[in-house]
Amino acid sequence: MIRFNNDYHHGAHPQILEALTNTNTENYCGYGLDPWCEKAVAEIKKYLDCPNAAVHFFVGATQANFTIISAALRPYQSVISAQSGHINVHETGAVEHCGHKIHALPSPDGKLNAAQIAAEAELYRTSGVQEHITKPKLVYLSYPTEYGTLYSKQELEDISTVCKEYDLYLFVDGARLGYGLGSPQCDLTLSDLARLTDAFYCGGTKCGALFGEAAVLTNPALQTDFRSYMKQNGAILAKGWLLGLQFYTLFKDGLYFDITRQADLYALQIKQAFTEKDIPAFIESFTNQQFVVLENQQAEKLAQHYIFEFDHQIDDTHSCVRFCTSWSTKQQEIDALLADIRAL
Amino acid sequence: MIRFNNDYHHGAHPQILEALTNTNTENYCGYGLDPWCEKAVAEIKKYLDCPNAAVHFFVGATQANFTIISAALRPYQSVISAQSGHINVHETGAVEHCGHKIHALPSPDGKLNAAQIAAEAELYRTSGVQEHITKPKLVYLSYPTEYGTLYSKQELEDISTVCKEYDLYLFVDGARLGYGLGSPQCDLTLSDLARLTDAFYCGGTKCGALFGEAAVLTNPALQTDFRSYMKQNGAILAKGWLLGLQFYTLFKDGLYFDITRQADLYALQIKQAFTEKDIPAFIESFTNQQFVVLENQQAEKLAQHYIFEFDHQIDDTHSCVRFCTSWSTKQQEIDALLADIRAL
Amino acid sequence: MIRFNNDYHHGAHPQILEALTNTNTENYCGYGLDPWCEKAVAEIKKYLDCPNAAVHFFVGATQANFTIISAALRPYQSVISAQSGHINVHETGAVEHCGHKIHALPSPDGKLNAAQIAAEAELYRTSGVQEHITKPKLVYLSYPTEYGTLYSKQELEDISTVCKEYDLYLFVDGARLGYGLGSPQCDLTLSDLARLTDAFYCGGTKCGALFGEAAVLTNPALQTDFRSYMKQNGAILAKGWLLGLQFYTLFKDGLYFDITRQADLYALQIKQAFTEKDIPAFIESFTNQQFVVLENQQAEKLAQHYIFEFDHQIDDTHSCVRFCTSWSTKQQEIDALLADIRAL
Amino acid sequence: MIRFNNDYHHGAHPQILEALTNTNTENYCGYGLDPWCEKAVAEIKKYLDCPNAAVHFFVGATQANFTIISAALRPYQSVISAQSGHINVHETGAVEHCGHKIHALPSPDGKLNAAQIAAEAELYRTSGVQEHITKPKLVYLSYPTEYGTLYSKQELEDISTVCKEYDLYLFVDGARLGYGLGSPQCDLTLSDLARLTDAFYCGGTKCGALFGEAAVLTNPALQTDFRSYMKQNGAILAKGWLLGLQFYTLFKDGLYFDITRQADLYALQIKQAFTEKDIPAFIESFTNQQFVVLENQQAEKLAQHYIFEFDHQIDDTHSCVRFCTSWSTKQQEIDALLADIRAL
Repeated sequence: MIRFNNDYHHGAHPQILEALTNTNTENYCGYGLDPWCEKAVAEIKKYLDCPNAAVHFFVGATQANFTIISAALRPYQSVISAQSGHINVHETGAVEHCGHKIHALPSPDGKLNAAQIAAEAELYRTSGVQEHITKPKLVYLSYPTEYGTLYSKQELEDISTVCKEYDLYLFVDGARLGYGLGSPQCDLTLSDLARLTDAFYCGGTKCGALFGEAAVLTNPALQTDFRSYMKQNGAILAKGWLLGLQFYTLFKDGLYFDITRQADLYALQIKQAFTEKDIPAFIESFTNQQFVVLENQQAEKLAQHYIFEFDHQIDDTHSCVRFCTSWSTKQQEIDALLADIRAL
Repeated sequence: MIRFNNDYHHGAHPQILEALTNTNTENYCGYGLDPWCEKAVAEIKKYLDCPNAAVHFFVGATQANFTIISAALRPYQSVISAQSGHINVHETGAVEHCGHKIHALPSPDGKLNAAQIAAEAELYRTSGVQEHITKPKLVYLSYPTEYGTLYSKQELEDISTVCKEYDLYLFVDGARLGYGLGSPQCDLTLSDLARLTDAFYCGGTKCGALFGEAAVLTNPALQTDFRSYMKQNGAILAKGWLLGLQFYTLFKDGLYFDITRQADLYALQIKQAFTEKDIPAFIESFTNQQFVVLENQQAEKLAQHYIFEFDHQIDDTHSCVRFCTSWSTKQQEIDALLADIRAL
Repeated sequence: MIRFNNDYHHGAHPQILEALTNTNTENYCGYGLDPWCEKAVAEIKKYLDCPNAAVHFFVGATQANFTIISAALRPYQSVISAQSGHINVHETGAVEHCGHKIHALPSPDGKLNAAQIAAEAELYRTSGVQEHITKPKLVYLSYPTEYGTLYSKQELEDISTVCKEYDLYLFVDGARLGYGLGSPQCDLTLSDLARLTDAFYCGGTKCGALFGEAAVLTNPALQTDFRSYMKQNGAILAKGWLLGLQFYTLFKDGLYFDITRQADLYALQIKQAFTEKDIPAFIESFTNQQFVVLENQQAEKLAQHYIFEFDHQIDDTHSCVRFCTSWSTKQQEIDALLADIRAL
Repeated sequence: MIRFNNDYHHGAHPQILEALTNTNTENYCGYGLDPWCEKAVAEIKKYLDCPNAAVHFFVGATQANFTIISAALRPYQSVISAQSGHINVHETGAVEHCGHKIHALPSPDGKLNAAQIAAEAELYRTSGVQEHITKPKLVYLSYPTEYGTLYSKQELEDISTVCKEYDLYLFVDGARLGYGLGSPQCDLTLSDLARLTDAFYCGGTKCGALFGEAAVLTNPALQTDFRSYMKQNGAILAKGWLLGLQFYTLFKDGLYFDITRQADLYALQIKQAFTEKDIPAFIESFTNQQFVVLENQQAEKLAQHYIFEFDHQIDDTHSCVRFCTSWSTKQQEIDALLADIRAL
């Protein structure tokens, strides 16, 4: 069985395991106050064009999401998110657990748009009973979204403008950021993200690391005592250098970008194979996640050799399923799948 | 100006003020451990046919809502509510502040139905990733709803059955309970509510008291150490007898039911007057809240003599507005309004 | 039986009940946005010499304490309090429930001193691992304390200076503020409190009102969207004018100060009677609470006619008990007690 | 410089890194639902004699502490801990952040005793105002304690008895569990721990793993939906097999016990060397942490070649410092230190 079910079913890129092995007899100061974290931060900041950004390393994405969001908000403030946003549907209510309401806006493609955000913020601004409702204060986006879709630079500029107008933080969940930046459709850089957002993170867990997310806080208002929020939420790793070392390895020669770009190319081959068979995309994606609508017998056939993810039932005879490539996907795995798609 | 904007714009029913005055030189034990609270509980329980119910007095409805809900739930459990539910839109995210997600279901008339609830609970039951999503554990209804609509006994029986099937608590917000029970459309009794729900409260603030809500916990699982939850949330009044005395006064001879029934009758006169003028109801209500669709000039005209609540804009020339009667509404106020409606 | 067990065993001062009765047929805007709240704020501010202070009305003291404290703090920040502080021992962990640690400092007389506070704050300032510990950010005092003791103006000046040096908010619980200001030992005014603190409140529940606490936020940093915090915590009373009207009545002609001063004088008579009998004070208090050490048989004798509060066991034959006068205490009650003390 | 400052300054035991390397090209199901986790659980359970125990893997100890504690408690319930307990002083108030008060009891040697616990629980049981105070519901111990001290089996039996009597959960923080079990002073087994506690964890981070703690929930009441609490707190690792694989490696042939026992033996050599020089122990420890009282010049001398931890100032000329051995400590490092101690 070949796994196309997600992008976190393998360990780490060999270079990362090698780095861990090479340094295993070294000893370091704990809690992320070590040279590897310092070097990793320096490498990441080379891409940001934002000298005052603060970079912090988390073990996982749910932890990063709720720690950053709850550090940014006061108790009566709330989050604007797409209904399909990861924080709204896959994190056991972690944001609400931290005390904050999510305004979950409808979004067929997983994206929010500037007009939606403005409308929601305007509801609060023009309310005659502001103290009876929560105050939207942070917009949560994913890049790419849960459906693999991407914001264009213009769309993100527009959203950023609305956020500034309504005094909203803009926070981008980048658990799959590499696969977004590596897409041929992407017209954004890390420097654009740093300029347009208040905080975002570069996902490692799904992009070649054993684990880890590198959070970038560009807005100084979010930086004060941030490590206190992290520790309180169990988000400072004792052996913090494990995170620094991994991100240093991923960013020092662009490995992060190379391996995710390759995964996107693989995904586009899958996309094309389905298109050629007139198997419709559920949603047009140019990143490593491909959602297609399979007939039941097609799905059963492919399931004999591949693990992929059932997303939802379309009707009695069709389902939407996800094929997901990964930094660990190999050409021969793709070749096999393409052949089997063509043979459907 | 005559107020039809809400049902809490006057002090208290004269009998309540009289009771407060008559006892003002008496002295009592604090924190609700006094004879008036005891007597009030006894009066309320006469209606319940539920000898093991626990009755506790709150000062206000928001406090009652979040205290009861958060006492009932574990951190990963969530609430099912109509989108228009008071907890979802008018309480500054108090339920989320206590850590719980609200599954806000669409409901044009403010009511949930058994099928909706079952579907939401079924999503969890059949989920392959239960630990990634919150577990619905409590259904929040209002009787009457925010739109003044009522559940029939059959509807509530059906909902109660679903709740039992899916191990959900059923909690009824009765901030306006009197106006529900007093409606000609009502086929429920307090004893039905006690039988069909796990908790509900009899609103006092909007039904003749200076302030106060009498919470009835019928499910023993919700009763353990309940006063600890109350105190922690600032919900035990130091001079608790003020609440006991008011509810004793309201319930001992049925005053609670008499004054709210009268307010409903007044509201139905308003309803009929609008109907006769072909001014459409936004929603059919048989309780003290009447939502109608006025043309702008009609609204302006009535606004010269009456305070009523703007609910939302329908289109450029029409708005939905609310006229609300109260235990304190007087026949002459109604007469004046009816005349002015007819004169539109 | 005559009650000396606390200062909240009676309803309200007759003038307050009269005011409620006189306005009962009036109607008002809800949620504290009414003329009586406005007028009450104006009366209170006459004493403050602090034109930018914000005044908000709470129903009870626990609610006021946790709402103000949690609105002031970020999640990783903590509170410095005396071990005997009300928030530390009598509020079911409401402050911790809101997420904040209390640094409970030893204090035999219920007071903190500037040196203690500085030492605690210095521990954080000089810590090499700040992110592993909570950051003290607010000092909680009571005036008078739980033992009836008072801070001198100089003591409060010193504490205020330390708070400014360490960037700590200073918050004074004034549930019994009237009895503090009315004491012959008091050298503080409301204007001093406004100048030296960031927030405090004038207790009404224990000082002549049916219920209510008037919170004064002098630090603008604490004022932003404060009503949102209140509503979220169930602390905005629907019929807010009930609070405004009571505080207007208490403050417009100094009633608040007159009735509490009289209660203090009564307490000092009790104090003197015990002294004359060589019955020792457990702690020297010049306010309405008197803690004395009684022999068991003395306690039993007095308990035949008076309700007073057992505080703690001293040894097999002695207890510390509290006699508490109130705005509602009458001269004849005092006379009876004095005679019985003398007869011990 | 040789590190004796803590037990988490090195990566992982070579066998663990080898296991990670050997499996790096394998692929697995995510979120801990993989064969390695299953095998690790089986290995751990071989030691427990508790077939119904549930085992869950956390990344770090703070996360494990607050997740387990907050899953066990209702909002008004509190924790009994030694003042020096890790949750009370080194976790940025994470337990309070989850809403729970800590009753921090004095303990010169880091241990609680049964009498202390009973006294604290008795305060609640006999309180006349239970709803005004928090209810102790969980006792938090560390084995070994922060000072390296150990509970004897009898002491733990006594504590367990008290916990059962007062309906308290007993939870043991085992971040350094290996060093406890490996001590010559230890008369406890994992099976004793499983029998006497409701929950405990076997620390990996400090005992040979790259990271990870294996939590054992023996009380079924703590097991329900436990993974939901974990996910909500960001405590389910996406690549969960990384934890399973490590704990399998540590437990399958007793590696966990071997490497920590050796570290204890090294520590006892250090202990003896100090004793022979008449350098007093601050506290008698028979585990891998040794607290000694050094003269300033002794400390300075040793600091030329060794990193050790300053604990606190004793007086102008003496400090208490900690020397900590680790699974990664080498004989030659010990030899060097012993020589330098003898040369003081």
